[in-house]
Formats: sequence, structure tokens, C-alpha cells
Amino acid sequence: MAHFNSAHRLFNPDWDDAKNFEVFGLCSNPHYHGHNYELEVRVTGEINPDTGMLIDLKWLKEIIKVEVEDKLDHKNLNIEVPEFQKLIPTAENICIVIWQWLRKSLDEQYDLKVRLYETPRNYVEFPAE
Amino acid sequence: MAHFNSAHRLFNPDWDDAKNFEVFGLCSNPHYHGHNYELEVRVTGEINPDTGMLIDLKWLKEIIKVEVEDKLDHKNLNIEVPEFQKLIPTAENICIVIWQWLRKSLDEQYDLKVRLYETPRNYVEFPAE
Amino acid sequence: MAHFNSAHRLFNPDWDDAKNFEVFGLCSNPHYHGHNYELEVRVTGEINPDTGMLIDLKWLKEIIKVEVEDKLDHKNLNIEVPEFQKLIPTAENICIVIWQWLRKSLDEQYDLKVRLYETPRNYVEFPAE
Amino acid sequence: MAHFNSAHRLFNPDWDDAKNFEVFGLCSNPHYHGHNYELEVRVTGEINPDTGMLIDLKWLKEIIKVEVEDKLDHKNLNIEVPEFQKLIPTAENICIVIWQWLRKSLDEQYDLKVRLYETPRNYVEFPAE
Amino acid sequence: MAHFNSAHRLFNPDWDDAKNFEVFGLCSNPHYHGHNYELEVRVTGEINPDTGMLIDLKWLKEIIKVEVEDKLDHKNLNIEVPEFQKLIPTAENICIVIWQWLRKSLDEQYDLKVRLYETPRNYVEFPAE
Amino acid sequence: MAHFNSAHRLFNPDWDDAKNFEVFGLCSNPHYHGHNYELEVRVTGEINPDTGMLIDLKWLKEIIKVEVEDKLDHKNLNIEVPEFQKLIPTAENICIVIWQWLRKSLDEQYDLKVRLYETPRNYVEFPAE
Repeated sequence: MAHFNSAHRLFNPDWDDAKNFEVFGLCSNPHYHGHNYELEVRVTGEINPDTGMLIDLKWLKEIIKVEVEDKLDHKNLNIEVPEFQKLIPTAENICIVIWQWLRKSLDEQYDLKVRLYETPRNYVEFPAE
Repeated sequence: MAHFNSAHRLFNPDWDDAKNFEVFGLCSNPHYHGHNYELEVRVTGEINPDTGMLIDLKWLKEIIKVEVEDKLDHKNLNIEVPEFQKLIPTAENICIVIWQWLRKSLDEQYDLKVRLYETPRNYVEFPAE
Repeated sequence: MAHFNSAHRLFNPDWDDAKNFEVFGLCSNPHYHGHNYELEVRVTGEINPDTGMLIDLKWLKEIIKVEVEDKLDHKNLNIEVPEFQKLIPTAENICIVIWQWLRKSLDEQYDLKVRLYETPRNYVEFPAE
Repeated sequence: MAHFNSAHRLFNPDWDDAKNFEVFGLCSNPHYHGHNYELEVRVTGEINPDTGMLIDLKWLKEIIKVEVEDKLDHKNLNIEVPEFQKLIPTAENICIVIWQWLRKSLDEQYDLKVRLYETPRNYVEFPAE
Repeated sequence: MAHFNSAHRLFNPDWDDAKNFEVFGLCSNPHYHGHNYELEVRVTGEINPDTGMLIDLKWLKEIIKVEVEDKLDHKNLNIEVPEFQKLIPTAENICIVIWQWLRKSLDEQYDLKVRLYETPRNYVEFPAE
Repeated sequence: MAHFNSAHRLFNPDWDDAKNFEVFGLCSNPHYHGHNYELEVRVTGEINPDTGMLIDLKWLKEIIKVEVEDKLDHKNLNIEVPEFQKLIPTAENICIVIWQWLRKSLDEQYDLKVRLYETPRNYVEFPAE
């Protein structure tokens, strides 16, 4: 589990303000709002017989820190994160971007699944089961 | 319990950027960041013998909605909430402002305490015990 | 996540009281007992490229309110919910009934899974993975 | 922490049905509804220097089982619990009744406080601080 | 859900102390350290039409108590649990051992999955999805 | 909130093994067992008008790391922590020792309260309200 606090705004530039408000409601507020995101990372594979462990958890936490927390924590997603220049920073898209960042660092022998809680009561998961 | 998602920035206009960063760190990011705030409201008093209840919970929830959630949810605290034009929107100050808003609506026979979680692991409470 | 509070009694009318008590224990109490049920609804599918979202969460919450909460909240399941006239209102059966109610309202492009917590430590899920 | 599941109905026999519904809303449903109650018991006092413990936790859990869980779990509070023949089983009153049951069993050297969660987001506490 | 508190040490006897510390860090402390393990057991299968239940939960809890809690709770895993004489008691290996213990007691008609939380923020699951 | 994982044994050297087992039960296991302790630190005082904050949270987290986590995490309390050479490492005594460690580092203008969870369902707090 990792977490990060970010500001974002849901806004499709191809639509006018009225259409954006109709679809995204308060989430289209031009002054941004924010969330404490909680991230759950699931790695699947074979256990290493020498260590009795699937993966080095310290290494995994470091990767999550470098690849996710340093890029997103205390950031304005729309303005400061290049991936969301053209991609609307919905929980769904943030989740996929995080999966792509982690997938690059993870050995091919492992499967990877990412679950992102935008609030304690709503989450998205990628890939779908 | 109520919750609201807001963007904020910690910044003292009497200080230069370097001093603000030194004191507030990443929280002084000029592009804002955000939180899911969780609010716990504690009301103390005598039980009404007719209802067996201390207070009408539906009424209390409505007051919290009108006085807190509608004012703060999906808002940028620094820009959109008048109380934080001159007051830095730290968790401590947000908590006191919420207490003041609720105190006005609550009958004098009740004591009131407000606890505000900025993250699940950090909270502030007003008044102190 | 949605929640509702209901009373129920586990009772198979084909058995006598002794057999019902033997199988269901305290849960066969003729005066009913109750739970705070917590519901987790999982929807799987393709992300809409215009919104960056899988599904309109406000719409989904409204459907859950109409199809589940309004039918079950503060109800006696055995007496007041037609589906449990002949079906024992175990967590397993409640979960399947909820799945059927939601499935009807949900577009075919989405997969649906429902998890029902009868207590924070026990849940059932339908369909099985 | 202990927990118990009970059915109850909020109803003041001095009022007619319309008045009861106006005050208690869905909670006055004549067919009962229910909750998973969670109980938090706080005991304050001096640490026993021989054991380094305030109180024997096994003993305390047994008392809570006998004095609270056995009396309330899987019960209909209005019908099956004598204390609620004349007292409306609101969370406030249940909390006080539990405090009275435990207070009798607890040595005078200890202070006692009881917090009762009717849902994870609403609790009552007795005595008030 | 079940839980148990155990002490353990991560140590591969084929390696010297320096290598063990390099791989396992503080977890190789020769004086042991400990955890509150939380166990989540998932059983999948057909619902019994007579009871409306998948499985008798009281029976399942008893099996978990006998097969898991009695063997692991308040134990030193390295010294007192035969399965970990030659197997390093990592969360991964503890999870598999628990799965094997429960699998033997469970009728073949059921599928079984075990999730073990070593801390509230880290878990392992067997078998992988 | 901070957490640490430790092994301990409850044992009064003035008593024989039978008496220790009678009083402490499984907790007197000579091979040790362990817990994930969770620590909640509450600081009370005046808000600094320049920062809008009560205390510098980064500083407080660092003090908790140095004064508590580094001393207790992944340690055997009975063997490796000098304070518990003569003091039985019950949750009550660990809580007081932590309070003493933190009290020394904290400016006199602040009040301090420490709550220690030995499991998610049991905690001790010092000082008592």
C-alpha cells in the first residue's frame, strides 16, 4: 500500500463548460479539488526457494516510491504530470498510468495488478480480472 | 462522520517562497494538492426522555451537510472559501472554522467537539480536551 | 459501497423448530435479529474515451439506491421483501438477489460482481471468480 | 471490543404511529430492523505492579460476554430484553444499560466508559467526558 | 477472518549472518520479532438449497481454530511449529502451509483461497488468481 | 500513527512457571510471540499563528521514529530493550515507556497522550483522561 495526495480537475477540452459540468459535476471545478489516493499493488508469481519470498518487498516499496509517489504526491495532476496533459485524470486513467509505470520496472516473470482507491469507498482496478 | 474532498496550498504571504518551502515543504506547491477530509462530530448533553435520543441525527447530518460539506466539498480552500482568504488552510485552522460553523447552529445545551482527519493516520481535534 | 440495516431470521419451513435451531442456531430466533450490511459492487468493462471513466458513478450510486437500499434498508427481510417469501434470507441468497436486481439495470457491456459483508469479518461474493 | 447483532424498533407508546414515524422515520418500522453493534469498553485505573497490567483482559472479556453479548446478541431488543420493555432501545439507552451492567461487575477502583457503535460511522458514549 | 500473534525470524541456514542480514534486514534479528497475523479464508462452491448457505460458518470457524489458530497463536514459528523447521516462515510460506492444513479438512466440492495479512498494509494470497 | 513489530513474553521472575502461566496464559510462552503495535500520539497546545499549525508534523514523525520505532521495531522487548529488563513488557508498560521517551523530546508547552494498540481491538492509553 502506498498513498499520495493530489489535486485534479475532470475536464474534456473538446466540450464546453456546460457539457463538462453536466458530465463531471463538481469534479470539473476549475480551481481543482483533491484526494488522498491509496494504492494497492498486487504481484503474482513463483516463490524464490532461497528466500521463501515472492519478491523483495523493500525493493518493491522503493520502486513504488520512485515510480508513483514521487511523481504524483502533492502534485496537481492536470498541470504537473505530463501523462495527464492529454488524458483526463480520472481514477481509471491514473490507475492505468500507474500500472504502466510499474510494469516497466517489474521482471516479466511477475503478473501485476493495481487497485487505486480515490476514497475509502470507491476504487478502480487494472487490469480487470 | 462526513467527508469532503478539497484542494489547498499552505502558504504564508508574509514569507518568501524559499521560507514557505522550508516550513511547509511540498504542501506549499503553488499548483495545489488535495485531500479527502473525514470529519467526526461529537455532541454531548442530556438525553431527551421522550425519544431516548441525545439529538436528532437526521437534523445533525443535514446541518453538517449545509454548514460544512456544501462549503468545502470539491472546493479550492484558498480561492473559494472566504474564511481562508487570510487564514492558512491547515488542518488545524480548517477544524476550528468547522467548529465555529457548527457551533452557531447547535443549541447551547450541547457541547461540541470536532475531529478532522486529513489522512487516515493524522487528525486534529478542537477544542482540546 | 452502499449499506443497509435489516432484520432477518434464518428458518426453513420444511423443518421443525428443533432442526432449524440445530442448523441455524441463534440465527433462527423467531423474534428476528439484524445486521448492518455493507455492499461492494464491482463493474468491469471498457473505459469511455470521452470521459476517461468506466461508468457514471453518480448513475451507479442512484441505481444502487433505488434497486437495493430502498428495497432492503430498515426492512424485515422475511416479511417485507417479496424475494424472501420462499428463499431463506442468508447472506448468500441476499447477495444473489442483489446481483439480479443490479444486473437488470446494467448495460450488457459491463460485467458485474457483488460482495456483501454481513459483518466486517464475513462476506459472500457472487458470482464466484 | 465486543459485538452483537440485534433487531430493534424505535417507538414511543405515548405517541400515535404518525408521530412515531415523524420522529423516528424508518427506524419505527413495526417489523423491526437490525444492526451489528460494536462495543468499546474503556477501563481506567492503576497498573498492578505484579502483572504490569491494569486489569485481567481475559476476565474482562468474559464479563463482557456474560453481561452484554449473551443478553443482546441475536436478540430482539424490544421483545426479549427486560430493560427495554419501557425504555426505547436507542443507541443512547442501550449504551447506558450496558454501562450499568458492566459497572456492577467491575471493582470500584476502576473508572468505566462505554462507547457503542450502531454503524461504523455513528457512535454514542457514556458517560460523557 | 481469524487472527493469531506469532514470533518469527527470517533466516536461511545455508547463508552466513551477513548474507542473511543483507537479504532479510531487521527480519533476521536472532532474538525474533512478531506480528499480529490476520487471515482471510475464501471458500467457493454451490449453495445448499436446504439452508441457503454455501457452508456451515460455525464449522468453518471451528476448523480454522483447530487447524490454524491453535497451531500458530502465541507461538514461535521457527521453534515450535514443525512445518517451519526447514521452511523459512515468510508470509508466503505461512500462507501456503495454512492453505494445506485447511485444504485437507475441506470437502472437495469447495475451492479454497487463503489471504494472510502480516500487517494491515501487506498481504499474500494463495493460490494466485 | 506509527507502528512497530516486536516479540515479547509476559513473565514475572518472582513467580514460578505455573503461576506465570495461570496469570499470563499463552503470553508467558518462553519462546516469545509477537505483535504489530500501532501507536497514536496526541499532542495538545496552542496553534502557531505564523504557520497555522500546532506542531511541525515532520519533526514529530522524526522524533517518533528515533525515540520509538528505532528502539522497538523488529526487537525482542525482553532481551533487547533495557527498559524491559525489570519491567514486564505488557502493553500498559510499553505505553508508559513510550510516553516517557516522547515527553523528554517535546517542548513543555505541549500536552502529550499516547495510545498503543496491541491488536486492532485492544489498546491502552497513557495518561488516563
